[in-house]
Amino acid sequence: MTQAVRHEEMRARNLEVVLGAVSRGGPLTRAALAEVTGLTKSTVSKLVGDLVDAGLLAETGPARAGERGRPGVEVVLSGERVAALGLEINVDYLAARVLDLTGAVRCAARRERDNRGSRPKKVLGELQALATEVLAEAHRLGLEVAGAALAVSGPVGDGVVFSAPNLGWQDVRAADLLRLPVPVELDNEANLAALGELWYGDGERDFLYVSGEVGIGAGLVVNGTLYSGATGLAGELGHVVVTPDGPACRCGGNGCLETYAGQEALLAAGNSPSLPALLAALGRGDRVARDACASAGRALGIALTSAVNLLDLDRIVLGGVFTQLYPWLSGPVSEVLTTRLGGLRGAPPAMSASRLGGDAATLGAAGRVIHRVLADPAPFLTRAQEA
Amino acid sequence: MTQAVRHEEMRARNLEVVLGAVSRGGPLTRAALAEVTGLTKSTVSKLVGDLVDAGLLAETGPARAGERGRPGVEVVLSGERVAALGLEINVDYLAARVLDLTGAVRCAARRERDNRGSRPKKVLGELQALATEVLAEAHRLGLEVAGAALAVSGPVGDGVVFSAPNLGWQDVRAADLLRLPVPVELDNEANLAALGELWYGDGERDFLYVSGEVGIGAGLVVNGTLYSGATGLAGELGHVVVTPDGPACRCGGNGCLETYAGQEALLAAGNSPSLPALLAALGRGDRVARDACASAGRALGIALTSAVNLLDLDRIVLGGVFTQLYPWLSGPVSEVLTTRLGGLRGAPPAMSASRLGGDAATLGAAGRVIHRVLADPAPFLTRAQEA
Repeated sequence: MTQAVRHEEMRARNLEVVLGAVSRGGPLTRAALAEVTGLTKSTVSKLVGDLVDAGLLAETGPARAGERGRPGVEVVLSGERVAALGLEINVDYLAARVLDLTGAVRCAARRERDNRGSRPKKVLGELQALATEVLAEAHRLGLEVAGAALAVSGPVGDGVVFSAPNLGWQDVRAADLLRLPVPVELDNEANLAALGELWYGDGERDFLYVSGEVGIGAGLVVNGTLYSGATGLAGELGHVVVTPDGPACRCGGNGCLETYAGQEALLAAGNSPSLPALLAALGRGDRVARDACASAGRALGIALTSAVNLLDLDRIVLGGVFTQLYPWLSGPVSEVLTTRLGGLRGAPPAMSASRLGGDAATLGAAGRVIHRVLADPAPFLTRAQEA
Repeated sequence: MTQAVRHEEMRARNLEVVLGAVSRGGPLTRAALAEVTGLTKSTVSKLVGDLVDAGLLAETGPARAGERGRPGVEVVLSGERVAALGLEINVDYLAARVLDLTGAVRCAARRERDNRGSRPKKVLGELQALATEVLAEAHRLGLEVAGAALAVSGPVGDGVVFSAPNLGWQDVRAADLLRLPVPVELDNEANLAALGELWYGDGERDFLYVSGEVGIGAGLVVNGTLYSGATGLAGELGHVVVTPDGPACRCGGNGCLETYAGQEALLAAGNSPSLPALLAALGRGDRVARDACASAGRALGIALTSAVNLLDLDRIVLGGVFTQLYPWLSGPVSEVLTTRLGGLRGAPPAMSASRLGGDAATLGAAGRVIHRVLADPAPFLTRAQEA
């Protein structure tokens, strides 16, 4: 390794350290940053100056001519330059949302449409149009969008949607089909929504996020990190076995959770043509609808019992359509968890409905890009210097 | 923080860095260590010298007077001074095993006894006698035993065995009851056996280790690290639900895996009074015994399907009594996994019988102490200097 390369690496690492410290603990003065990071004050001053120039950090308080960099001024993440785009293809809508570095939503768009059994090219084309609009708006706001992440329900990997039961898609190269002027990555909706809850939700660092849709996914967050498994396919809660000889599941098995608590099973049992219809029936106390939710809740309780026994969870967040169905689902779920887990664990895990609801996935998607910028800010400094 | 404290911390960290580099990649020369660690050659020389003096590192090749520390000599972990004690209370035996820093077994003892429904004080008294013998032998070999870890089947925490179904124990303060001249920590047998497989087994870094006993536990190893969950109770595979309305389980639930594939269920279904009797019946092709294994295997396949869907496992190691029963269990397990996981994952995870068998838990227990020494060697240097 040459001296110059080593110096570049050291500088990249120190930039990350300073930016990370401000991100976690800001606002901070340069002196406080030196103490927190163990770097010298002059190194910190240089790094902070470069990060301010690149638009990643900003100084707080009124700016006065000639006073930039004076010791008492605090720095925070800047919301004025770098941003990220979160995208989602949901069964009922397409969504795009731009977050700046501080996590504030700067612009967003959403288009209601029924994506069931849709053609991938058509849907991705519409999403591309929506994303392009939002990117133009971000540009007008002076934001530089560093990248995009797209959330799709179901197992994904290497830019390919292996199976999206909501949409009826199989093996769709979604990341390639979406042409945008920024790099696009693809991830599972439940994983991204779990990250959304982690970064922009209640501040919990350990939980299982459950996403109820046509399929049922889950994102496991352990000590502030997403657990994604050997091949990125962890969290397939929908195929946890509830009854081995239960109804046939599209996965080839029988009696998977999805056959009891997936949206299609729920609507069929609740004798409702759509989720709004089911919610309306529940609202007026319809017996069939309530029984459908209760039995879906008991099945979810069984699958979550297995999950808690394996993963030792102490918090479960119900998202997707389960957020709206929470008042009718949570009782039966809790009952099963209490009966089955009380003996070994004393108390069942805490459970709540997602506070972010349908926004969790796009927030997590944009957040993933933002966290990547924070973890490796050096390229943005180079760009700022070249500009 | 004073300058002196900061210096001590830096030194402790550098000792760990050097020892860790040798542990992972040794033998290494001092020059190679400097390159790997990024420390200066003179710092490395000083640290290596201290670690050699403390008996944690040794130089390879013939020692020649006056030549210690010459540049070409390589250093390795030393097996001559620091060691660790692994203990296990199994349903059929007590075991103690001393490993040196290189992972070599230096002395061991095992006492066959039936620990079913045993009095904790009596069993721990016998284990104490066995451990004392082995510690005396280690002392004769010139080894300094840094600590002990005790493996017990079932959920444990803070030195307490919450429930040991093998033994019929409830809330036993095992770590306190065992009086030894070294610190004793307590952990779950499946977790420690999983670590034994990780450190002294096939070299895999991602797998689920399943321990079949009266209860059925599991240890999940992810990227070389044990996943232990929010409260250290992860891996309760025995209470993953196989059939919601199945036989009553001692946990208060119904149809848990344990009620189908736990040792008692297996022996009852196989019409055998003991595991050796079951193995003998299997060996002579007894139909009832084989059917018992096949249906336990199918139940295990169901529970593992749920585990794979949640955790995205690509390797499963069957340990405990499942190691001996592997020839009769593995077919039915594989069949279920292939049917239920083929659709989503293409192929089921690889499966094998534990190669370490009954030794995995004591190896993992001693290994845990050894890894703690390697992660924080500074106290051993202080002791060596005071001696």
